[in-house]
Formats: sequence, C-alpha cells, structure tokens
Amino acid sequence: MIWGGGVTLAPMSIRAAIVGPTGYTGLHLIELLSRHPLAEPTYLASHRDELPDIRDEFPKLSGVVDPAIAPCRAIDPEAVADAADVAFLCLPHRASFDYVPALLDAGLRVIDLSADYRLRDPALYQATYGHPHGDTQNLPDAVYGLPELFRTQLPGAILVANPGCYPTAAALAIAPLLAARLIDPTDIIINAASGVTGAGRKATQHLHFPEHSNAFMAYGQIGGHRHAPEIGQTLSRIDAAASPIHPLFIPHLLPVERGILETIYMTPIDADLSLDELWESYEDMYAHEPMIRLRKQPPNIKHVVGTNFCDLSIYLVPDQGTGHPKVVAFAAIDNTLKGASGQAVQCMNAVFEIDETTGLI
Amino acid sequence: MIWGGGVTLAPMSIRAAIVGPTGYTGLHLIELLSRHPLAEPTYLASHRDELPDIRDEFPKLSGVVDPAIAPCRAIDPEAVADAADVAFLCLPHRASFDYVPALLDAGLRVIDLSADYRLRDPALYQATYGHPHGDTQNLPDAVYGLPELFRTQLPGAILVANPGCYPTAAALAIAPLLAARLIDPTDIIINAASGVTGAGRKATQHLHFPEHSNAFMAYGQIGGHRHAPEIGQTLSRIDAAASPIHPLFIPHLLPVERGILETIYMTPIDADLSLDELWESYEDMYAHEPMIRLRKQPPNIKHVVGTNFCDLSIYLVPDQGTGHPKVVAFAAIDNTLKGASGQAVQCMNAVFEIDETTGLI
Amino acid sequence: MIWGGGVTLAPMSIRAAIVGPTGYTGLHLIELLSRHPLAEPTYLASHRDELPDIRDEFPKLSGVVDPAIAPCRAIDPEAVADAADVAFLCLPHRASFDYVPALLDAGLRVIDLSADYRLRDPALYQATYGHPHGDTQNLPDAVYGLPELFRTQLPGAILVANPGCYPTAAALAIAPLLAARLIDPTDIIINAASGVTGAGRKATQHLHFPEHSNAFMAYGQIGGHRHAPEIGQTLSRIDAAASPIHPLFIPHLLPVERGILETIYMTPIDADLSLDELWESYEDMYAHEPMIRLRKQPPNIKHVVGTNFCDLSIYLVPDQGTGHPKVVAFAAIDNTLKGASGQAVQCMNAVFEIDETTGLI
Amino acid sequence: MIWGGGVTLAPMSIRAAIVGPTGYTGLHLIELLSRHPLAEPTYLASHRDELPDIRDEFPKLSGVVDPAIAPCRAIDPEAVADAADVAFLCLPHRASFDYVPALLDAGLRVIDLSADYRLRDPALYQATYGHPHGDTQNLPDAVYGLPELFRTQLPGAILVANPGCYPTAAALAIAPLLAARLIDPTDIIINAASGVTGAGRKATQHLHFPEHSNAFMAYGQIGGHRHAPEIGQTLSRIDAAASPIHPLFIPHLLPVERGILETIYMTPIDADLSLDELWESYEDMYAHEPMIRLRKQPPNIKHVVGTNFCDLSIYLVPDQGTGHPKVVAFAAIDNTLKGASGQAVQCMNAVFEIDETTGLI
Repeated sequence: MIWGGGVTLAPMSIRAAIVGPTGYTGLHLIELLSRHPLAEPTYLASHRDELPDIRDEFPKLSGVVDPAIAPCRAIDPEAVADAADVAFLCLPHRASFDYVPALLDAGLRVIDLSADYRLRDPALYQATYGHPHGDTQNLPDAVYGLPELFRTQLPGAILVANPGCYPTAAALAIAPLLAARLIDPTDIIINAASGVTGAGRKATQHLHFPEHSNAFMAYGQIGGHRHAPEIGQTLSRIDAAASPIHPLFIPHLLPVERGILETIYMTPIDADLSLDELWESYEDMYAHEPMIRLRKQPPNIKHVVGTNFCDLSIYLVPDQGTGHPKVVAFAAIDNTLKGASGQAVQCMNAVFEIDETTGLI
Repeated sequence: MIWGGGVTLAPMSIRAAIVGPTGYTGLHLIELLSRHPLAEPTYLASHRDELPDIRDEFPKLSGVVDPAIAPCRAIDPEAVADAADVAFLCLPHRASFDYVPALLDAGLRVIDLSADYRLRDPALYQATYGHPHGDTQNLPDAVYGLPELFRTQLPGAILVANPGCYPTAAALAIAPLLAARLIDPTDIIINAASGVTGAGRKATQHLHFPEHSNAFMAYGQIGGHRHAPEIGQTLSRIDAAASPIHPLFIPHLLPVERGILETIYMTPIDADLSLDELWESYEDMYAHEPMIRLRKQPPNIKHVVGTNFCDLSIYLVPDQGTGHPKVVAFAAIDNTLKGASGQAVQCMNAVFEIDETTGLI
Repeated sequence: MIWGGGVTLAPMSIRAAIVGPTGYTGLHLIELLSRHPLAEPTYLASHRDELPDIRDEFPKLSGVVDPAIAPCRAIDPEAVADAADVAFLCLPHRASFDYVPALLDAGLRVIDLSADYRLRDPALYQATYGHPHGDTQNLPDAVYGLPELFRTQLPGAILVANPGCYPTAAALAIAPLLAARLIDPTDIIINAASGVTGAGRKATQHLHFPEHSNAFMAYGQIGGHRHAPEIGQTLSRIDAAASPIHPLFIPHLLPVERGILETIYMTPIDADLSLDELWESYEDMYAHEPMIRLRKQPPNIKHVVGTNFCDLSIYLVPDQGTGHPKVVAFAAIDNTLKGASGQAVQCMNAVFEIDETTGLI
Repeated sequence: MIWGGGVTLAPMSIRAAIVGPTGYTGLHLIELLSRHPLAEPTYLASHRDELPDIRDEFPKLSGVVDPAIAPCRAIDPEAVADAADVAFLCLPHRASFDYVPALLDAGLRVIDLSADYRLRDPALYQATYGHPHGDTQNLPDAVYGLPELFRTQLPGAILVANPGCYPTAAALAIAPLLAARLIDPTDIIINAASGVTGAGRKATQHLHFPEHSNAFMAYGQIGGHRHAPEIGQTLSRIDAAASPIHPLFIPHLLPVERGILETIYMTPIDADLSLDELWESYEDMYAHEPMIRLRKQPPNIKHVVGTNFCDLSIYLVPDQGTGHPKVVAFAAIDNTLKGASGQAVQCMNAVFEIDETTGLI
C-alpha cells in the first residue's frame, strides 16, 4: 500500500465517514483518522453538486488518504451506513438538520461538529442562531462531547454534539473554579483570541491575505458572539445553583492560521482566596487528564498548535488597594484540534470505548 | 543632495539630536525627523564603545539620513548642544540618569523616551524598577508628554517624559470615562496585546524568529507589569478623587512587528448608563484632536501601524441577567509611533509651539 | 484643518485625481499625495455603481485624506479636469481604454498604472493580454515611466505608462549590464518573489489568509507570465542590437503583504569578466540616482518596504570547473511603491519638472 | 499511562537515543519517535554542563514524551548502548566526531544528522568546512541516507549520514533528469528558499523576530554555500560520466518557520526535448516512492510542512527565440522532516528493515 503507513490495522477498526470534508475540520479529521491505529476514514460525503476529489481540495492529503475514498461521494445515508460505523458531520450550522435524522435512522453513530445540537434548549438555539431548531426529536439524545467534564455520557452515545472551539477552552479553564465555588459566577470576563481557521474556509474580503497579515482586532457584535450562550450553558451545568451564568465574551482575530488563547478575568468569592486553592481545584479535576496540561507559565498557542492538548494556568493578582484580588486564568488550544476535529476523535474513542487518547498523541 | 527630499527647509528648523539611536525608537525618530518639514536630525550620539554608522545598523536609512550625520558620535553634551536644540533620549531605563542632567545644563531641551522621568514619585519609581531614582533634582520639572491629556504643560517645557506605549493607549481610552465619572475606578481591566518591537531590539531566545512566529501568549509577571503604575498615575491625575487607581493590566505578545491593541473592561457607576453617554464623553474630549480617531468598529492595529493615530471605540454590553452592564473600550496605536517616537515628535512640536501634527500626517 | 499636516502648501500645488482609488495602488497614491509638499489629491473617481467613501474602504485613511474629497465621485472627465491637473488611473487592465482618451481630451495629464499603455506594439499587447489594444491612437504618445532609464521623455509628457512591479526591478538590475555589454542577452533568468498585494485586492480562495499564511510557491503559467514581454521590451530598448530579448521569468508568491525580490542569473560574454567591471557598470548608471541604493550585501525586502527605493547588488560566482562563471544580481523594491504608486509619483514629479524625489523620501 | 497513546507497542520496538536533543532536529525526532508504532525514544543525551529537562526546552513535548526519559542525561556511550539500539546525533557540525566512534564501538547503530559524514572525500570536507575531517576511520562506512536514490545500502547499515535539507530537495528533483541524460550537467542553477528553522535554534540579531518578520533575502556567501558540494557529490554519483558536477546554488531565507522550496533552472541536452520525456524520467524513478508526490501544479511549502513528503513538478519552457528551451523543476520539502528528522526516521526504518514509511504518514 503506497498510501498507507506501516502499521498493521488491529482486528478492530472503527470505520468513519466524514460528511462535508472540504472545510478545515474535514481536513484535520482525515489527517487524524488516517494515522489513527484503530480507525480509518472509509467514506467522504460532500453536498456539493460537483463532487470533488479531496486531494484537489487539499493537496496536502495526497499520499495520505486512501485513493479509493479520495473522490467524494454524495450524502446517501444508506451507503454511508454500509461503509461506516460513525459519521462525522462537518457541515455549516443548520445543514446538519438535513442529514442527522437519516444518518441516525440508518444506524450510524453521529458526531456533529456544527453548533446544531450543542444548545439543549431549542428556544435558546433560536434566539442565538435566528432560526428554529430543525430536529427537536433527536436533540434530547445529543451528548455534549467535552470528555473532561462530561465523560460518563459518552460510551455508547448515539449522537454527540462536538463543542465549539471557544467554549472548549473557556469551560475547561473555568469549570474547576466554579466546581470548587472559588469565583463569583456573575463576574466572568473571557478575552479570547483565535487563529483565522476559526472563521472557516470561505474567502472573504477582510480575511484576504494582505488585509489580515499583521492585523489584530476584536470582531463580531461586541458582547453578542454566538458562543457565549454555549459557554454559559456549560458553566451552568457545572454550578447549577448559579444558573444561568452569562460570561462576558469578547473574541479577537489573530494574524495566524491556528490556535486560541483565552485570558479569563474573575473575582474571588472570598477575598482571602489563595493561589494554592486555585491550583488545587485544577489538580483535583485534571491531574489525571491526559489531554490537559497544567502550566506554571502562561500558555502559548505555539505549544498547543498541532496537538489535542489544552494548556491551562492560573494566577491570583493580589488586591492593590481596591478591596479585591483578581483571578486570571489562561487556556490555550488548537482551535482545529481540541477545538474541533481532535476533540471529535477523542469523543469517537470514548463512544467506542477505546483509550481516549488513541491517535491523538 | 542625493539623500534629501525635494522640500526646501523653512527658515525655522528645529535641530534634533538622537541619543541612543540604534534601537527601534531611534530608527523611527530618524525616519520621522528626516521628513519633518520644520526639523532635521543633526547629531546621532551613541554610548557604544565602537561608534557605528547608523546605515549599517539600519540599512533602511541609507539614502534617507544625511550622510554627514550617519556616523554616530560620542555622547558629548557640549557638542550635542552646539549641534542641536533638542535631544531625544532613546536609552535603556536607568541610563538616562547619566546624561539628562548634563544635557539640560548644556542648554538643550530633552525628550526622554525611557521610563526614568515618567513616575513623579521617586519611591514608586524605586518600587517599580528596583533601584533608586537617579535624578530627583530634575524629576519635578519633567512634563508627562501625553498632549491630548496634558497639553498645556508642553509649550516651552525643558524636560519631557515621553509616555510608555501601553500607558498611552490605556490612558487615552479610559480618561474620558473617568473625567465624566461614568465608570467605577476600582474595577478596570486592561487586556493588552503588543507587537514584538515593544520588547526591544536585543535578540533573545524566546523572540528568535522560529520560536515566536505564529505564537501568542501573555508574558511577564502576571499582574505585575511595570507599566501598570504609570497607567495608574495618569488615571489618578484625571480623577483625583478616586486616587490611587490600580487597574489590572495583562500584556500579551502578538506575532507581529508593530501595533498595540488594548481591550478594556469596565463597570458603569450607574446601571442605567447609555451608549450615548459613553460616546459623548469621547467626543467631548477628542472631537478636535487630530491624532485621535473615534471608530464605530473595533479598531484594528493594521489601520494604525505606520501612523501616529490612536483609534478608539467604545461599547456598552447590556446586563444579561447578572445585574450590571459592562463597558468595553478598545484602543489601537502603533507602539513605535504614538507609543514612542511619533508621540515624542508630537511633543517636540508642542514644545516648540508649531502645529502638533507637523511631520506626522 | 484637523485632517491636514502642519505644512503650508507652497504656491505651486499639483492637483491630482485618482481614478479607481479602491485598490492598493489607490491607497498608496492617496497616502503619498496627502503628504506631498507640492501636490494634493483633489478628486477620487470610482467606476462603481455605488460610490464609496474612501475612508470606509481604507479606514487607515481617516484623518489623512481631506474629508471634502473622501466621498468618491463618478468618472466624469470634465469634472476631473476642472478639479485636477493630472489623473492617475488605477483601474484593472483594459478598463483604462474606456477613460484615457476622454481624460486626455479634457486636458489632463494621465499617468496610467495599468498595463494598457506599457507595450508599444499593439500586436504584442494582444498576444499577451488576449484582446486587442483599445486605444492605438494615443499609444504612440505613451512614455514608459521608468525615470532611471528613460528620464528624458518625462518632462511635459501627456501620457505616462507606469511600469509593472516585476519589470521595474528586473530592468533596473539588468540594464547596466546590457548597456556595458557584459552579459549574454540570450541567457537571462529572473527568479522573482512578490508580496501578495501584487495580486490585487480581490479576495480569492488561494489567498484566503489561512491558505496563504506560511505558504510559498511559484504561480501562474510557468514561463508565461504577462510581465515577461514588458521586461523583454525594456531590455531590448537598452541593447537594441540584441533585440528581441526574451528573459526567462518565474514569479513566486511570498507570505507577506509587500515587497519584491528578484534574483537574476546571467552568463558573462567574456569569461574573464571581473566583479569590478560589474560594479562599474552599476555605478556608471546609478551613482547619482537618489532612488537606487547599491548594496554590498544581498538586499532584503524588509529594507525597501515602505520606501520608493530600489536596492541592487551584484555578484560574480567564479567558474567551478564548468567553463563559465555566472553573474548573480539582486533587486528589491516595494511592489506598491517603486513598483507602482511611488514610481507614479516620481513620474508626476518628473512630468511637472520638480525634484523627482519630492514627497518620496 | 498518562503520557502515552492508546497504542500497544508491538513486540518489536526499536529503542532510540537522541544525542543533542535541544535543537529543532531533536524536537522533531522526539515527536516522530513518540508516535512511531515500532520505535520509542529511550534516552536523551545532552552535552550541556547543566542537563536540562526536555520539557523545559520544548514545552510542546509535555504529555508527549515519557516523563522517565525527559530529564536529559550525559552522553555516556555505554549507558546509551544499554538503553538503545540506535543513536540519532543532532549535534553541531564537528561535534559528531567526538562521539560517533565511541557510540559505534559500544555497538549502536548511528544516524548522524550533522554534515560530518556526508562528504566522502576528507579533502573536500576540509575545503568546505575549514577544518580537517575528524574520523576518517569510520567515514568509509557511512551510508548517505537518501533512500529514494541510495536505498540498497541502508538495510543493516552501521552508520548513516543523514543528508542536508537543501541537498535532499535538489537531488530528488535533478537525479531523474541526469539519470535519463536529459539535461546539461554543467548548467544547473538551484534557487532555494528556506524557513528559518534551517538556521538553527540559536538566537541571532538578524533573526530576532522584528528583524525577520516580513523579510526575504539571499544569505551567506553568494555562490559559496556549504551545501553546494554535497549536492554536487550526489549528482555526480547519479551521472558519474559528468563528474564533477558543480551546480550554482543560491539560498534565501523566508519569513516562515519551516519549509524549503527549490526552483531549479536547467538546459536540455537536446533542443527537441519534450515535456513528456521529463515526466517519464520522474515517473520511472518515483512512481512507486511513497514519500515523493509528483505534482501537476508548482508545489507549495504549505502542502509539505508537517509531512515527510517531497513534492516535485517539472516544466518545459519553450524556446522564445533564443535558440534553446529551458527546463524548470520545483521541489518542496519540510526542512525539519524530509530535510532532517523525518528522513532520519525513514533511514532508521530502512536500517531495521521495516516499512520505510512507518510512523511517517
């Protein structure tokens, strides 16, 4: 096999379909699954009228992807189910509704990378995305795929809503502090900066290379990003008593391809809070998490890009005469991996009950 | 004149010396002064043992700088005073103390780009920089060179302390809100991101190109950056009643050469604060300021790099159930221009009582 | 005047219209002319149906451009002629034909930044651009605006064809060698690399930021770039005996916004050629040229970006056993300045017989 | 195992030591070997006085490298031999001589990533590197580790000289054309551009981030780069009759971290050469090579960075009136992988007679 690696596939091999493979999440899923020792991509399904060969879309995949599957096929749920055990959906928001029911009916596990099944409340979905939820029947079955926080629901799950990139970093940084009741849930500020792949692959004027090289700015409706309700939902699950939690979330766009850094500002409940307590809360929750790295230095996106790790660090800034110290937490992930395709593979591993890190380290 | 432009110098021409011209602030001062219609660089003074030709240090300056002054000379205050009316000091912090007294004695106006004369309180200087202030005699005469806020002190000033880059952006964004008593002075969070020239020209491991390309991270002692007291001092001058003001300041390093963006989070004093009131405070203070641009979109460092402008915008994020709205302000400057050399030229213009924008637009 | 600088305009002021100001060449012309001491932009003419305000197109120009002219107007030749002495055309290739005759008839000098008047032979134009030349009447009057090589034709010229970016760098590097008959005109290889602004401002998939960041590749039809005939035409004018000259020209796209570097490989006519002879040819031609910098190090685009300079250096690589030494020349320019808008201003200065470097250094 | 992946190691596992792991080649070897299914890093040996933990040198490796080996140990050949089957040497040129003999004596296979064993002729080594060869005893046993060209010597080899990055790309692009006697061996021009990791990890002034961002320039002694003799040696082995072959090689430095693109200009022996013949020579040599991708578009470093592939394409530019067509070939590799650490792993696979691509796709 010229295209393949030297690893003999183990007897068990999870067969994976990728629906909508021509965006960045598709690219990274194909890369990850192609070198996964216990899984393999078996079907690429495109909703384009003219079905592309994935190697033309992503020349990087030549020699990596099995030539037999490189020409994309139509999204035919029965054919997908014949070829695959699980389908990853990498479609634009709202498009998932057109395919998830049929893919589930055909017997596939579904891991949806869009936002369509992330918010549990259809009314909140409608308020956030501006159109009604299109599949309230399956919505209750959707498991929110953030293993470090909600792992127990994943084994055997039928439908996984893969979290957003910003919400992944924010939830991982804040959850231990809320769980330990160390910070005030009404005063959380998330200052986020992302690489440009987070904005998708479609060419736009303001992301034309000369316009965005050496640029840096906040974007979107200030205080109104779609990821804020998703972050709030997760945090409210961690600290139900404080629900609903509404963090202030301001995203910026870095002049880089990949990576997210979130700098999170919080207020302690107790003015005597110590740095040790902050670290204990992180260690209690993450000491045995293989994909979380606790750092004594502020994390750098450079150290997580290309990996599925989430790097976290936390600081206590003492009261400087104003009556209250502040807590500052940092979270860094690769938006395309732990923030999307890597987390989706981690979820797949959990669903199929193999070591969660398989193919990811 | 091969090196010169086609502009005939006006009868009045401010003769400027640059002391310590081999760093980035020196480079930009030479560029600005070389095309300034009413000023000209006349003396480059280096404290290196081996005196460099500035064109070897900065090949970009060949054909720009007068060949007669390109070979740096020693820092001889009398010789500098013979050749120049004003001396710009671009030395490392603490080194200014060795030269400012003698340059003043020699009759020069001095514009110091280091931090040495920015903090008015010698005890705060010592606490911040770790060594005693070295010139308490001249310190009381130093004028803080932020024209938009403290313009009246500049005409005829003998010694100007040119503000830090981060403090310039922060003070310009926050001052109107404090002046109008719209925000709580005890709860100000400044999330800042800077291009790498802000860290100086000395090669270091973590700023070696491959280490920092595509990188982004917070840096320094979290909550303990040296610019925080300078910001606090300026804000306390604006709102003396609230003094001392201690903002929380967290800087990050962007993978770009130039530009600073600050995203500033504040809490209104009055929960009924309107966006109009915020804008009014900005317009009241800046409507006639030629170097301030009020923006209805979040500013982008791309639009200020290469200019002396400070771009500002401001937003009110409504209460989402937590009991308080938030104010979010943005400030963007070029750290090497409005944050250093451009502001120094603006100060020079004010000191010599010519139009402040001369040579800057 | 808030928007203006501190320079009092001299009695003589060249009034300039910019036709098609919403691309990168328009941006840089407005910047250059706004700070030009003897010229000013007076009319921005757009061929869009909905006429934009230039400050919305380029937020960088707020506070720089006179607000009175910022709202673009239609391309009305009579109105342009009322307001301006010279019109810079920044339109796509072929569109110039629609406006140049009328603008000339209205009495304006025209400096055309498109390719439409660069090739003197209409048949070659048609072969190169795939459509007939649309204004053969005015074509004979067009002066090729490369002042260092063809200066004498510029004073008083009615119509200037502003050279292409690649041809400018190539012609300046090769011309002295051909003039001194040092190199074989049949064996010239131009390996070029350009920043992305050279490809225009229109967003395209392959120049979407994530696709092109950290990228580098040759592009276009290998061996068939449209600039090759223009280079050949210029070289043939320098060495008429060797005409026609057909250099091999291969362009690449750098992951930067601005800058062109050309590495040019040539074969000496005489195997005994010395490095001194090469340098002499450069010095003979350029010693007194203010916009050419002869370098003893290979030029770096970093040193020319933001300037109108062309940096040149030249090397002789000795015969290493193959029977012939090689000549390697380097040329670096800013494609948006010496390669476009800066050169256009240099031409304007020459046309109006003021110092060519006015407003450019 | 927190640090490990989910792959059970196969019974056979090649134990690998990395000597000098704190540079970029060390980093990438550790990454590659940590996820290699049939090998594992077992010993990190540093020649620093203070032995670092590799996770402090490269925070990216936390959670990837086995914590048991992360603290570097001294270079003790016996201890290395106890822990490992093969030693990769990532030392500066000349330092390898201090360790290779002892490591071989201790029974290890050695793969040397320095230049010390690449040139077969000690006199050429001395002429190129300026000091005598330090191990002429083992030099004759060194196998040049470019599997696509010299694969047969690798199985069971004791000492492998891993090729330079530039020579790898050049040799792969040119070899088929020489083997098929299509091009003139006396007229080969290699225009190369590399990412900055190729210059090593040591911080230097000209590679300080602000100095090199947005930069591009040729570097080194023009026509005298140390890689030229290595390229010549390889090409001379392919076409012994034409020996010695001295290509003209000019390297440039891109403002990116990783990636090499070489644009190679050649002259056909036969003026009637067809493009089909060029492609045939490539396909004859590489059709079954898993790490070579033949491209119908000019290769982009973006598509090879992060992979061990070499992308090649070839063009024939017809005679445009000068009497001879030209051949233009392109080769793209990741300088840190196919140009260094990836190729070293490919060689290890070949030495130990497992599928060459194992752990590389």
